[in-house]
Amino acid sequence: MKVGVEDIKCLAIGAAILGAGGGGDPYVGMMMAVKAIEENGDVTLLDPLSIDDDMFIIPTAMMGAPTIMNERIPSGGETIKSLHALEKHLGRKADATMPIESGGINSTIPFNVAARTGLPVIDADGMGRAFPELQMETFHIYGISGSPAAITDERGNTCIVNTVDNFQLEWIARGITIRMGGASHIAEYPMTGKDVKATGIHYSISLGIKIGKAVRGVGVSGKTALERLIEVTEGTTYGKCIPLFKGKIVDLERRTTAGFAVGNVTIEGLDEFQGKTLKISFQNENLVAICDGEVIASVPDIISILDSDRGFPITSENLRFGYRVQVVGISTPEIMRTPEALKVWGPRYFGYDFDFIPLELRHKEYYSRARLPPEKMVKYRDILR
Amino acid sequence: MKVGVEDIKCLAIGAAILGAGGGGDPYVGMMMAVKAIEENGDVTLLDPLSIDDDMFIIPTAMMGAPTIMNERIPSGGETIKSLHALEKHLGRKADATMPIESGGINSTIPFNVAARTGLPVIDADGMGRAFPELQMETFHIYGISGSPAAITDERGNTCIVNTVDNFQLEWIARGITIRMGGASHIAEYPMTGKDVKATGIHYSISLGIKIGKAVRGVGVSGKTALERLIEVTEGTTYGKCIPLFKGKIVDLERRTTAGFAVGNVTIEGLDEFQGKTLKISFQNENLVAICDGEVIASVPDIISILDSDRGFPITSENLRFGYRVQVVGISTPEIMRTPEALKVWGPRYFGYDFDFIPLELRHKEYYSRARLPPEKMVKYRDILR
Repeated sequence: MKVGVEDIKCLAIGAAILGAGGGGDPYVGMMMAVKAIEENGDVTLLDPLSIDDDMFIIPTAMMGAPTIMNERIPSGGETIKSLHALEKHLGRKADATMPIESGGINSTIPFNVAARTGLPVIDADGMGRAFPELQMETFHIYGISGSPAAITDERGNTCIVNTVDNFQLEWIARGITIRMGGASHIAEYPMTGKDVKATGIHYSISLGIKIGKAVRGVGVSGKTALERLIEVTEGTTYGKCIPLFKGKIVDLERRTTAGFAVGNVTIEGLDEFQGKTLKISFQNENLVAICDGEVIASVPDIISILDSDRGFPITSENLRFGYRVQVVGISTPEIMRTPEALKVWGPRYFGYDFDFIPLELRHKEYYSRARLPPEKMVKYRDILR
Repeated sequence: MKVGVEDIKCLAIGAAILGAGGGGDPYVGMMMAVKAIEENGDVTLLDPLSIDDDMFIIPTAMMGAPTIMNERIPSGGETIKSLHALEKHLGRKADATMPIESGGINSTIPFNVAARTGLPVIDADGMGRAFPELQMETFHIYGISGSPAAITDERGNTCIVNTVDNFQLEWIARGITIRMGGASHIAEYPMTGKDVKATGIHYSISLGIKIGKAVRGVGVSGKTALERLIEVTEGTTYGKCIPLFKGKIVDLERRTTAGFAVGNVTIEGLDEFQGKTLKISFQNENLVAICDGEVIASVPDIISILDSDRGFPITSENLRFGYRVQVVGISTPEIMRTPEALKVWGPRYFGYDFDFIPLELRHKEYYSRARLPPEKMVKYRDILR
């Protein structure tokens, strides 16, 4: 598949929805990739299950607090510098690059790298969404080393980091990123085609493009953005997109600390959610959604805040008091919900004292707990679909 | 010159005096070097002015807060791992190693590396004492890049850092060191023999050995340690060792912050200093000595606190309430007092609002300000000599 300018514009939207509020404002990454493709031509997106086992892939990404990324616009060359530094360190050229996350800016960063270097991009990633830390990767969970990694900044500083495990990689690379001003450019998790087949979340990038296309309404008509989003997600490896809440942002607490954008957003219900209050906690990404004291969605499932008008995603650092929003939950692929995976990105890892319950089960539970008569519940869901 | 176990024991003492309270407790570094020499034989110390211009030298050192270094005893292999990582990155083997500072633990670290690898050590360094930051090097001042640098920890993590200048190197390497637990092992400022001749502080290591020998009283008798220290310093490139104060530690404020051991020690005068109070501020190293509100010594000149009994140096992290101490000032070589050098390590760099005045001039001024009758002043100095 060839990825052109329109596809990148769709991916920016789709990936921001999968990004669960994190991964940075896709606008910056989109502009970089669009410019690179306009100058160098479309990028080849490779089927992750059809590549050679011994293909050599170096994923590329940005690291840091999205609040800071938005204020330190990259020139576009920094990530390529990271890629080349890692290639030089390894003594081996990459045959392709790949996103490490299918959310936010990091879904489009590899397209900028690919367009400028002539490399293809693999249609897969390691997060299936956005997550705040480097070891939060199916690559890590299923045995791939994130090291050696290359980290650069826009000043021209470069570090090669080689750690004994991926937690140490996150810890040290985060320290470097903080010293680089809170945002950096990385090349890491160098791996083979065989590794991608065994440990990647496949087709997440083309799904991001599809979701973006649906929400933007390209080729679809007569349906709301939310309806199209639900439709396009159904039947994919993700499976379900569930409308969780609708309301107005009435409180927002957000700070950049230890290299992350962390905080809480409080949303007062509107329409059928009148009288209810939803609180979403985030660490770059939305982690947990609590409605009137009850958890209604949690990591690793995706909690996304969309603007009520267009269904466009709002990333954590772009949330503002007074915004009218639609909150949706998207269930994540099974590879992300295994016991090994939940140890890495389940609610307990983030300090919450409860186990992960799949969104589609919580959703059922939530409506029954709200004691809605079954017929009303069906009606409500029908309306949304 | 061959450096054996006894020389290392002397160097540990001498370098701690030149270390101005910083550079870490020399005991740890001494034990490592002694063990390495016992197992592998004496180390060759090379005359810095007689080496080949194209000899390739990689200095080795520890980085971090001495308070932490003392609690994280290295196995001895970490610095060698840094050396090898940098050699691999550069694609060139080192012909020799060298201290980056002639103070504290870092004067002996290269002897551990040398004994275990068979490399010689160059009789020079870049600080002429100990200093807290990586750009505080005559190497830096006179144009050598500290990058690329290799940084390791005892867990087995390794970073290669390549920065656009030496301030960025300090900033990023310090960040990595903090994340590595506050202490790390580095190989940096790779340079040629020609570079050492042009930018190094020559013979500082053999001077450290001589000072240590003198203070320990090896081969000298009938004189106090202080007298021997003054005697052995006279006529070297350092020139003058001046007794500044004698007293008891009555207050000590010390904290480990941003990767440094910083604080103040207050000393109440005894004997001829009765009624006077000396306050010394340190950031790993003693920076400024203020007696009753008057600066009597400052960076880059060396302020060293010795125990009153044996004249052995006490490093910043080993200061304790109640210790009886002798404070000495040692003037530094001219290469360390040029306008370029003072920009890097003069009192203003450390936030003090005064210019550097050479110790030997301050000393004169101090005594005249104290309005001692000239004959008494001479007598005092005679006694000490």
